Amino acid sequence: MVLVRHETSPEDVGGMWAAQGVLTSTGGMTSHAAVVARGWGKCCICGASELKIDYKKKTVTIGKTVLKQGDWISLNGSTGAVYAGQIPTQVSPVVSAVVDNKVSAKKDPIFLMYQEISKWSDNNRKMNVRTNADTPKDSVAARSFGAEGIGLCRTEHMFFEGDRIWAIREFILAEDEKSRKAALAKLLKHQQKDFEGIFKAMDGLPVTVRLLDPPLHEFVPHTKKDQQEMAKRLGIPLNKVTERVQELHEFNPMLGHRGCRLSITYPELCVMQTKAIIGAACKVAKAKKAVKVLPEIMIPLIGTKAELDFLEKIVRENAEEIIAKTGSKVKYMVGTMIEIPRAALTADEIAETAEFFSFGTNDLTQMTFGYSRDDIGSFLPDYLNEKILPSDPFQHLDQTGVGQLVKLGVERGRETRPNLKCGICGEHGGDPESVKFCAKVGLNYVSCSPFRVPIARLAAAQAAIKG
Amino acid sequence: MVLVRHETSPEDVGGMWAAQGVLTSTGGMTSHAAVVARGWGKCCICGASELKIDYKKKTVTIGKTVLKQGDWISLNGSTGAVYAGQIPTQVSPVVSAVVDNKVSAKKDPIFLMYQEISKWSDNNRKMNVRTNADTPKDSVAARSFGAEGIGLCRTEHMFFEGDRIWAIREFILAEDEKSRKAALAKLLKHQQKDFEGIFKAMDGLPVTVRLLDPPLHEFVPHTKKDQQEMAKRLGIPLNKVTERVQELHEFNPMLGHRGCRLSITYPELCVMQTKAIIGAACKVAKAKKAVKVLPEIMIPLIGTKAELDFLEKIVRENAEEIIAKTGSKVKYMVGTMIEIPRAALTADEIAETAEFFSFGTNDLTQMTFGYSRDDIGSFLPDYLNEKILPSDPFQHLDQTGVGQLVKLGVERGRETRPNLKCGICGEHGGDPESVKFCAKVGLNYVSCSPFRVPIARLAAAQAAIKG
Repeated sequence: MVLVRHETSPEDVGGMWAAQGVLTSTGGMTSHAAVVARGWGKCCICGASELKIDYKKKTVTIGKTVLKQGDWISLNGSTGAVYAGQIPTQVSPVVSAVVDNKVSAKKDPIFLMYQEISKWSDNNRKMNVRTNADTPKDSVAARSFGAEGIGLCRTEHMFFEGDRIWAIREFILAEDEKSRKAALAKLLKHQQKDFEGIFKAMDGLPVTVRLLDPPLHEFVPHTKKDQQEMAKRLGIPLNKVTERVQELHEFNPMLGHRGCRLSITYPELCVMQTKAIIGAACKVAKAKKAVKVLPEIMIPLIGTKAELDFLEKIVRENAEEIIAKTGSKVKYMVGTMIEIPRAALTADEIAETAEFFSFGTNDLTQMTFGYSRDDIGSFLPDYLNEKILPSDPFQHLDQTGVGQLVKLGVERGRETRPNLKCGICGEHGGDPESVKFCAKVGLNYVSCSPFRVPIARLAAAQAAIKG
Repeated sequence: MVLVRHETSPEDVGGMWAAQGVLTSTGGMTSHAAVVARGWGKCCICGASELKIDYKKKTVTIGKTVLKQGDWISLNGSTGAVYAGQIPTQVSPVVSAVVDNKVSAKKDPIFLMYQEISKWSDNNRKMNVRTNADTPKDSVAARSFGAEGIGLCRTEHMFFEGDRIWAIREFILAEDEKSRKAALAKLLKHQQKDFEGIFKAMDGLPVTVRLLDPPLHEFVPHTKKDQQEMAKRLGIPLNKVTERVQELHEFNPMLGHRGCRLSITYPELCVMQTKAIIGAACKVAKAKKAVKVLPEIMIPLIGTKAELDFLEKIVRENAEEIIAKTGSKVKYMVGTMIEIPRAALTADEIAETAEFFSFGTNDLTQMTFGYSRDDIGSFLPDYLNEKILPSDPFQHLDQTGVGQLVKLGVERGRETRPNLKCGICGEHGGDPESVKFCAKVGLNYVSCSPFRVPIARLAAAQAAIKG
């Protein structure tokens, strides 16, 4: 079953999970569908702009070919080719052996070669390889691929699952701080439980947790029917709902009220997430079957030192309170994503507060080039044809421009804090050429989706050998 | 009469012109309403987020006050205060004397002081002061305020006025290059006439013309009724229109298919605009009452040297052809906006092709901070309250971050091309503190809206004196 959409959003995650492949007509390397599917090791093609999708008629038209719901199509995620009809496929023996722990696959010559190369890689590389994962399941898969920690745990889905969406919607509709806090209180225990699961899976390895990043309008319904349901469920008039949804509309959400900007407007969000993270860390650290936890709290979308100072204070106050109360000895770090050009340019100032940097090269690429990851499909083909770009900069890091900011960020950050831990958590962390660049500029680790961990280990070794 | 809107778009320009003041509930210093109104010297307040505007009921609600269409309100554009009721106002004697050429105002002591200070300023400043203007009328006003050229002539309105919008819509709906060229041919003579008017008004002074910048969806209608009209007028089925409009929708238009990216996809756009500019230049230069023209063709949104090379070639080929055909001796320059962080970072490469740089600090601020000019209203008040930002970075240039890129761009550009002409055409060109920064980093000129030219002259002089 292949899910075909214009684009996907967090609301589609259930359908994506059920599907064997995902095909979208917009977007690219770092759009929602690509990032989520890659994380699961699922086949996905994004930005197939020739596709005309008619949701009402349930048809897809490509040139003169019209496909109906239920028709067979086959995807080649490596080349981006879409085939009408069914092409037989085969599961990778490496995946069978590593993820599904199939005994027969462990004798497959391909798996044995994988094992050998991985050993050589680990014996030679100097950089660590972490993973981007936000569930215990993904964390376990990544560990089995050799991940040495989580470099990016996105907390978005912790606001979506099951009934949680209603708590965050209540938060969004609340008219004062007290009601907002009451709504968030409902999320606290769920999120703490999520973090406990992840910390257990990563026992002894560092886990970088990013605080909430997406804009709030991603959490509210946009059809009238769903808005009516929301009004009814929250017991507020429909016009309040529609008014708030309209208020949350943004012209350029990528450059809008998201990331740390949300927690500055609503500090209670940062408080709740800190409590969930540190609460979970203290609990698993003190459990009978004690787990070693190394939480790193990462504040996203920082552009100025003042933003980080404001939120670091809140994180530390709340973390210390829980640590003191539980009598735990959990150590944690507070750091930031470097994903806004201004953050790289002022990395010396930001490193006064940040204990680590993680280069978010997806957003950094968006802002350094002024390219929206979801809209690049309209001009990227012309740019590649005319050789204006050597490749998709969301796929291979642009070393001249974006890379310049990464290099500068590392250098300036370490001028202030010589032992500053620096990593990368953008999609480039799983791209061999980009991984080699990361080694060159002195990053401590790269972090990529679980299924790309082996290739990142290899690339890191090649970088270390070639020097 | 005050026009009250959520935000304005090019379609509102007629209403804005008719109004004495403009009030919007979203946006800020550089949103459409602010830029257009400032250009005309018209009072405008943007981002009054407490306003609840009901277009259907024609009411504005602020707290418990409900105002109906026709009620009096008064605006103070300097403080941003909105008053219910009528407050008497008075025309500035400087504007009366300079723009309206009123003899009585020329004896007003305020005007005489203005004149004296302006003389002192001009005797001391080292930087030139140009203006942002795109009509002969605005150009004349700016010259009377002392502008020494046009630093930014936006060509957008040349696609909107009267019947022209139908030609550009025909271009957008065309299915092949031939039809696109046929549609653009209808615009050529209109645009050439526009440029002739501007060149005449600026006789002897340089005029920097920016090629088309906004994304194409700004030119298509978004209501069903208007789309039906469009289908009928262009003689194409309605579903073709709605499909194309849907195709043009972007998630983040500010980071989408606009600026030079349009002309790379549709080179015929660049061809038509070059023909209009150079055609006009050759014509007025050879007219009986000959005019001295110094056109500077500016390619917007450049992020890589390859983009500029691609378009510069098209510009030069078409310009040379017209110059040869008309036997004219017009000299012109080809340069670029530096408004994408990557352009500043690779200014050394870009200056191999660009003969001048104009720093577009509005977009540069958007991308360096990751702030959408139209959405910043949702978090800016909190940022100012908490002193996270010292001021609105769209109003006063952020010297630490954005300014760092400007400085770097000038330095690297001049490493390649020592005599590279550098200016600024963002709104900061009319802000005294920013003007002083521009002097410090060695810009040749600042360019600002006509009514801010006097203050820019003064600030440039203060910078020269204080050193």
